[in-house]
Amino acid sequence: MEIDEVLNQFKNDKISKKQAKERIALLQLEELEDEARIDTMREDRIGLPEAILGEGKKTETFVKIMKKMAKRKGRSIGTRVNKEQKQQLQKNKGQLEMEWHEKANIAVLKTEKTKQKEEGKVGVICAGTADLPIAEEAKVTAELLGCKVYNAYDVGVAGIHRILPVLKKYNEENIQVLVVAAGRDGSLPPVVAGMTDIPVIGLPVSTGYGAGGNGEAALLSMLQSCSLLTVVNIDAGFTAGAMAAKIAKT
Amino acid sequence: MEIDEVLNQFKNDKISKKQAKERIALLQLEELEDEARIDTMREDRIGLPEAILGEGKKTETFVKIMKKMAKRKGRSIGTRVNKEQKQQLQKNKGQLEMEWHEKANIAVLKTEKTKQKEEGKVGVICAGTADLPIAEEAKVTAELLGCKVYNAYDVGVAGIHRILPVLKKYNEENIQVLVVAAGRDGSLPPVVAGMTDIPVIGLPVSTGYGAGGNGEAALLSMLQSCSLLTVVNIDAGFTAGAMAAKIAKT
Amino acid sequence: MEIDEVLNQFKNDKISKKQAKERIALLQLEELEDEARIDTMREDRIGLPEAILGEGKKTETFVKIMKKMAKRKGRSIGTRVNKEQKQQLQKNKGQLEMEWHEKANIAVLKTEKTKQKEEGKVGVICAGTADLPIAEEAKVTAELLGCKVYNAYDVGVAGIHRILPVLKKYNEENIQVLVVAAGRDGSLPPVVAGMTDIPVIGLPVSTGYGAGGNGEAALLSMLQSCSLLTVVNIDAGFTAGAMAAKIAKT
Amino acid sequence: MEIDEVLNQFKNDKISKKQAKERIALLQLEELEDEARIDTMREDRIGLPEAILGEGKKTETFVKIMKKMAKRKGRSIGTRVNKEQKQQLQKNKGQLEMEWHEKANIAVLKTEKTKQKEEGKVGVICAGTADLPIAEEAKVTAELLGCKVYNAYDVGVAGIHRILPVLKKYNEENIQVLVVAAGRDGSLPPVVAGMTDIPVIGLPVSTGYGAGGNGEAALLSMLQSCSLLTVVNIDAGFTAGAMAAKIAKT
Amino acid sequence: MEIDEVLNQFKNDKISKKQAKERIALLQLEELEDEARIDTMREDRIGLPEAILGEGKKTETFVKIMKKMAKRKGRSIGTRVNKEQKQQLQKNKGQLEMEWHEKANIAVLKTEKTKQKEEGKVGVICAGTADLPIAEEAKVTAELLGCKVYNAYDVGVAGIHRILPVLKKYNEENIQVLVVAAGRDGSLPPVVAGMTDIPVIGLPVSTGYGAGGNGEAALLSMLQSCSLLTVVNIDAGFTAGAMAAKIAKT
Amino acid sequence: MEIDEVLNQFKNDKISKKQAKERIALLQLEELEDEARIDTMREDRIGLPEAILGEGKKTETFVKIMKKMAKRKGRSIGTRVNKEQKQQLQKNKGQLEMEWHEKANIAVLKTEKTKQKEEGKVGVICAGTADLPIAEEAKVTAELLGCKVYNAYDVGVAGIHRILPVLKKYNEENIQVLVVAAGRDGSLPPVVAGMTDIPVIGLPVSTGYGAGGNGEAALLSMLQSCSLLTVVNIDAGFTAGAMAAKIAKT
Amino acid sequence: MEIDEVLNQFKNDKISKKQAKERIALLQLEELEDEARIDTMREDRIGLPEAILGEGKKTETFVKIMKKMAKRKGRSIGTRVNKEQKQQLQKNKGQLEMEWHEKANIAVLKTEKTKQKEEGKVGVICAGTADLPIAEEAKVTAELLGCKVYNAYDVGVAGIHRILPVLKKYNEENIQVLVVAAGRDGSLPPVVAGMTDIPVIGLPVSTGYGAGGNGEAALLSMLQSCSLLTVVNIDAGFTAGAMAAKIAKT
Amino acid sequence: MEIDEVLNQFKNDKISKKQAKERIALLQLEELEDEARIDTMREDRIGLPEAILGEGKKTETFVKIMKKMAKRKGRSIGTRVNKEQKQQLQKNKGQLEMEWHEKANIAVLKTEKTKQKEEGKVGVICAGTADLPIAEEAKVTAELLGCKVYNAYDVGVAGIHRILPVLKKYNEENIQVLVVAAGRDGSLPPVVAGMTDIPVIGLPVSTGYGAGGNGEAALLSMLQSCSLLTVVNIDAGFTAGAMAAKIAKT
Repeated sequence: MEIDEVLNQFKNDKISKKQAKERIALLQLEELEDEARIDTMREDRIGLPEAILGEGKKTETFVKIMKKMAKRKGRSIGTRVNKEQKQQLQKNKGQLEMEWHEKANIAVLKTEKTKQKEEGKVGVICAGTADLPIAEEAKVTAELLGCKVYNAYDVGVAGIHRILPVLKKYNEENIQVLVVAAGRDGSLPPVVAGMTDIPVIGLPVSTGYGAGGNGEAALLSMLQSCSLLTVVNIDAGFTAGAMAAKIAKT
Repeated sequence: MEIDEVLNQFKNDKISKKQAKERIALLQLEELEDEARIDTMREDRIGLPEAILGEGKKTETFVKIMKKMAKRKGRSIGTRVNKEQKQQLQKNKGQLEMEWHEKANIAVLKTEKTKQKEEGKVGVICAGTADLPIAEEAKVTAELLGCKVYNAYDVGVAGIHRILPVLKKYNEENIQVLVVAAGRDGSLPPVVAGMTDIPVIGLPVSTGYGAGGNGEAALLSMLQSCSLLTVVNIDAGFTAGAMAAKIAKT
Repeated sequence: MEIDEVLNQFKNDKISKKQAKERIALLQLEELEDEARIDTMREDRIGLPEAILGEGKKTETFVKIMKKMAKRKGRSIGTRVNKEQKQQLQKNKGQLEMEWHEKANIAVLKTEKTKQKEEGKVGVICAGTADLPIAEEAKVTAELLGCKVYNAYDVGVAGIHRILPVLKKYNEENIQVLVVAAGRDGSLPPVVAGMTDIPVIGLPVSTGYGAGGNGEAALLSMLQSCSLLTVVNIDAGFTAGAMAAKIAKT
Repeated sequence: MEIDEVLNQFKNDKISKKQAKERIALLQLEELEDEARIDTMREDRIGLPEAILGEGKKTETFVKIMKKMAKRKGRSIGTRVNKEQKQQLQKNKGQLEMEWHEKANIAVLKTEKTKQKEEGKVGVICAGTADLPIAEEAKVTAELLGCKVYNAYDVGVAGIHRILPVLKKYNEENIQVLVVAAGRDGSLPPVVAGMTDIPVIGLPVSTGYGAGGNGEAALLSMLQSCSLLTVVNIDAGFTAGAMAAKIAKT
Repeated sequence: MEIDEVLNQFKNDKISKKQAKERIALLQLEELEDEARIDTMREDRIGLPEAILGEGKKTETFVKIMKKMAKRKGRSIGTRVNKEQKQQLQKNKGQLEMEWHEKANIAVLKTEKTKQKEEGKVGVICAGTADLPIAEEAKVTAELLGCKVYNAYDVGVAGIHRILPVLKKYNEENIQVLVVAAGRDGSLPPVVAGMTDIPVIGLPVSTGYGAGGNGEAALLSMLQSCSLLTVVNIDAGFTAGAMAAKIAKT
Repeated sequence: MEIDEVLNQFKNDKISKKQAKERIALLQLEELEDEARIDTMREDRIGLPEAILGEGKKTETFVKIMKKMAKRKGRSIGTRVNKEQKQQLQKNKGQLEMEWHEKANIAVLKTEKTKQKEEGKVGVICAGTADLPIAEEAKVTAELLGCKVYNAYDVGVAGIHRILPVLKKYNEENIQVLVVAAGRDGSLPPVVAGMTDIPVIGLPVSTGYGAGGNGEAALLSMLQSCSLLTVVNIDAGFTAGAMAAKIAKT
Repeated sequence: MEIDEVLNQFKNDKISKKQAKERIALLQLEELEDEARIDTMREDRIGLPEAILGEGKKTETFVKIMKKMAKRKGRSIGTRVNKEQKQQLQKNKGQLEMEWHEKANIAVLKTEKTKQKEEGKVGVICAGTADLPIAEEAKVTAELLGCKVYNAYDVGVAGIHRILPVLKKYNEENIQVLVVAAGRDGSLPPVVAGMTDIPVIGLPVSTGYGAGGNGEAALLSMLQSCSLLTVVNIDAGFTAGAMAAKIAKT
Repeated sequence: MEIDEVLNQFKNDKISKKQAKERIALLQLEELEDEARIDTMREDRIGLPEAILGEGKKTETFVKIMKKMAKRKGRSIGTRVNKEQKQQLQKNKGQLEMEWHEKANIAVLKTEKTKQKEEGKVGVICAGTADLPIAEEAKVTAELLGCKVYNAYDVGVAGIHRILPVLKKYNEENIQVLVVAAGRDGSLPPVVAGMTDIPVIGLPVSTGYGAGGNGEAALLSMLQSCSLLTVVNIDAGFTAGAMAAKIAKT
């Protein structure tokens, strides 16, 4: 690591103590015009790349960060990318390659077609058609992080018989972790977690209306479940997918 | 009905118009020392007896209302009765008979042992041992209202296989309505409602802790369910049991 | 049932044990291009058809599911259908017939004009003009499920005298279950339930503004009611109508 | 008024400008050992006496303030007085007279038996036995402020017929304002306000359990009511009684 | 009253008992094509006219009800009227006259220019420019109900000195009741209620952002106030104005 | 598996089809006097034993279930065990051995001292002394499930420098998953997850007071975290520990 | 001060007592057509200018107030100014000068270019790109109030190493107070407050989605923090900046 | 600083690079039997001592930490200390001196009577007698941190005239920062902040009942205030006092 280099220079009197400290501080920071600092060493540190959240960012800022990150790290991942952001990314990508995942609203910029070797197997299950975009966000994320992902959609609790054949297949495939997405009453993840020995990550989705709508009932249901599972925030497809990949790969 | 009597007297000039109106108004009201008016015609009007809620009433007021109601109507039902209320009722019941339902905290005062004919069949299912007292409140209520009640307790979603044999039996017995009680994540009623054509009343129970505890997650889950069911308030065992009886008997 | 057929084949050695199990699993599942599985046996299992919720679905997915279901089952019901979905359904319905219920935002696709025999009588009451679309959703649903439905709209608590003649008529008609819709303070269902022996399903509506608006006060009011009633989620007109039909028909 | 006295002294050079200002500032303040300042002119300013809330005060502080206020103003009113506070007040009241209102938990200290002339008529209605202590707090408060108070308790919405004779009598008595207390679903005040032209103050009470319990559903119901009424906080019997008296007396 | 007429006919055998009852029931109900029943006797019964809430009603329904009510009662009042509703009302008003209150979004249809005699004096105070439309809704309502209304706007707590001269003037004018509107922290009504003996109705307004925004902090503040006041729902300008008029006129 | 046995008997005509079905249904269920059914195959099915939650169970029911489970499975685990439950367990354990984990309130009943082989390494970190009992619940749980657990307590964000040496050590030990417990603001898990590539399970604890107290702020913080982590319910130490063990062992 | 002038006139009999009082009352009030009163002495009284909140004001009212204030006080500050308001201000500013702060949505109208001397040093830190506009609102506010402001943006907790060099620099610059803005989990302010002896004002920002989104988790986190800091409302950039300036300047 | 010492040793080859790093890490940590690490350098780092929160700690743990901290730093401060903790501290303080602040529930252990020089002036105002214990917690805290504290209690908004003389005196005394505590409606801090140029820290107190009780209305009111102030958590007297001292001393 670079810190050793700096410390060696300090020991050998090539730089002063003050200089050494300053260089270390600068080592990890890359300023982007006073607006965004890219945490370029994050992937090394926490084992997961930093996703650039499109939602809430001005298009030009988003594009600038995506490109800078892609050039430095070989690839950048943008989530919750809206139409305008996608189009501007396409237009301004220069020599970078761009992947677009329609259902998941995820954009990827890459320097070249890198072949990532597959490690880990993740299953993604969702309860209804309405939960699909968030389930896709989890699925594409896990794939981008190198996992083989199996998915089974529209497998709701109202028809409990739909679940068994799916779980049987996943067991045969030695899937290591499941992401189970559900909106409304959020019953699917507890039911699945009560039927399998694969660890389950519950992913509440902001469907439903009235009391407990927008994913609230789903989130609380999963937190209260007697079956054992861990949970991520409502609609947090990227977090669920990335954590699944992290677990599947260890 | 008495109103006809009064109107006849009016037509026949036995009483004045003003007198008639006053009598009708008084007909249905029975004052109890400025504190509680007994709605003695309620059972005729809405098809269900008025339960005397023990919770939040002073013991002596509770005992007084229970006795007055029992004498007038032949039977009175007290719910959420605490120990002191139960003991004082026992002590002061005079020539009335008393039934005590330990698990359900329900007391009944009766003028005599009346044999009620059984009408309607109700099933009561609960998800865990902790939900039992509320499930019992529903069960005893439905029995007091003349139904034959079947119950199956500790049938949780964490072990989905426990449910099927119960439902099969209930179908064979031609049960007309189910009360399904569940705390924590409240997944059981949606799952049951997705597996049977018997109408389900969801009864959320105030178990669970942390976010959504005290029955909140359970209630929201049931309201959000894709399976079809109707719901009563958290811990409202009497309401669930009485509504089940009302439906089973029609 | 088909399961018997499979088991017979197994017993007669026409198929292996493994094959039998696989066929049973496949029996009930019909995949729709990786997005939506139609639960075609649901109506047989739970006594109610599956409604296709338009809200939150992409128009083309919605149309595809509606058509597939109609072809297989003879009829499909879409709720909370928006304008675009309605128009595309109209355009692409092919040889199917389409019914459109304007006030209730419900679309029906049918293979032919089937004459359903009427069973059960349901009453639908609503408190104000603003509650009408949700009350209509309940009404049309119950009608589609074969009930004769009586309705009385704009019968609010602010003018309590409006309610009595309605209930009198319903009693004379031997209505078996009432759906009572109300927004804002939700007082109507408790008041109605205190005046009649017909079972009441409370249907809170997302009207009102400020504290407790959007149906929250209405829902809590109904859950807290001293009168006895069961409740469905805010704006859940389909659930209320379907449950009313289920009860009326048993 | 005293301010004129001070200003006259200033004009006549009896005191300096600085002195005058200081005196005015001191005029209205009476310090009580660093803990409580008695707002002795409040009754003149806002037309209502300051009640001393017992809840949350140490007994000795409570007693001290009650006595000081009684001596200065002729009477002091303590609300939500607990047993210990009541007993200590009794023990230490010296030559003051004490009134104790058991159901309302209100204590009054007085220098002598003053005969207050009756002005204004207030009606207090409550929905159930459990709402009685708060209704009593309102009633006693209005009486202490000089009103003649009529009350009718246990007049719930579950039996709507109980309300009409009460309202008829109140109209005949020319009652000027109604306080209507209700817990649980809080339907009574909206129903009453829809039946009478007497202004209604809704008083939500912290009864009920489960979702919307502790007066929450009652409060929201009253705020959402289509009938017209104004509302006070949950359990705020003193506020309701005092505001009723204020309105009745103008 | 008409009921006497009917009863007399009954006594004199002109109509049967059954007929009499039916006529009474019909007396007060006026059906509007299955959608809205006009409560035409409401004004007589509760002393306040029924306002037609524009918000949430379809334009044509709104216009139809406004016109019918105006023809029958001489005047109809529409609140929270949107632009389209206003324009259609203007276009289709026929021979009725229309008043439009721009700041308050209130429309009035009248058969002729009736000169209402002024009774009662109401003061309306608001805390900031943003609270003005709701304060205006209260003001116009009270004026339409025959009160003389004084208003003082933008009198916030951040500058407490702005309040005193206003209150002084109101006292001199013998104003009988105050409506005090405030959003954000809602401090103005408690402060005003602590400075005057005129009864105060607190009117929380849905301004403010972040935690407690949309009127929530304002409502809670007013409910918790140590000063005495009654409260209406967030943004309920019509209720506040109508209740103020009701109190001012008695 | 037993199901094969039954099917073979069916094929060989030893039992009828009906009998076979019944036996399968009974296979997995063990009734306990109408109150609790033990899910004895759960450990085989989901890879985790069923913990017996002491909280909310009557002591004698708790003891009965603990003993029955221990006899059948060789070991039973009771969590949130109160003093009375612990003492009765001790008194009535018969020939079973009992382990008591004081800080974690966990009781274990065992048939004999079984030596479990250690698999997987889990780290447990907590933010403050007040979070310790819940952290201990997680730690003991993971140990009982066969993991080697490292713990570091009182490592709060207020002193960020306390965290680095802990994480360094955990990396050297090849710990596979971290449980990070925190109450109040819940900042520790996000900070830790931003510094390490070991997967983090956030465990919110019900400490703190005022707004967001009782673990609410902690839970929301963890759900909102930009760092990646999964979360369990407030105070759900058993769930966190069991899920950590499940992940560490795969 | 003017009050002395008035009092002198009173003492010298130039005006009557009544006149004097009236003049004082009028002194501080400046009415703006019945809509907005400008509190022109506020800056003298509380040491901070009154900002004109654009949000929720009609454009023409906003422009009128901005101009009047600028003419009287030499400068007016408008916050949360939308595009239309900005354009109309530009168009109608007359001879006033206008400053526009794009990122902060703040507009300033001035009579002339006044050179304000710099007093006090404030640091503004924000956690992510999405928090930038609110952080800018705080920054520009503090600058307008005469402070030198240092800023460091996108310094999140997910990369804790980014914070240290920033704080080191701020210490060297003798910054007197820090505004730390953060959305989502709001962990940055607690972490910063645990690392420095400069007082921290936490500024929660309405970013994030799902449970605790819109700044709720951030606000609760900061309120619960073990590190010591004070907090302002969600998105209250102006308040944070103004309070920072107030503290920095004393 | 010690780090220089370690680095010098490293440069001079007295210790290896690995040793140097380890020592730095250990420098700031002092372990306390696996339960609590004392952050002994915190006071140097953030300018405020670490208070030991008694609430939620076992008595013996609390006493152990208090004593260890006192011995090392010369003084330790315990807040929210309950009776048992206080008594055990008294009993086991050994040669340390103990100060007990009754109203504030604060305990101090000291090695000797150190005379702290007074720096900074803080004012503490509270709205009612019930808010006093929390106001005292703030006051004693600021005094312990070396400030001269002025206090004025029971200065509520219901009597606005009580506030002016207090603020006048504080201005004359050159007080640098105000802590204003208020429960219920929390109006006092906004009113005070609108009347003075001294910076205000709002301290909501958990008084009040019903909707918005327990400090919720007070907190929201302060966050929404148009007057400028910063806020701490409900009942966070220590935080308010410590932050006031920090600001007053810079």
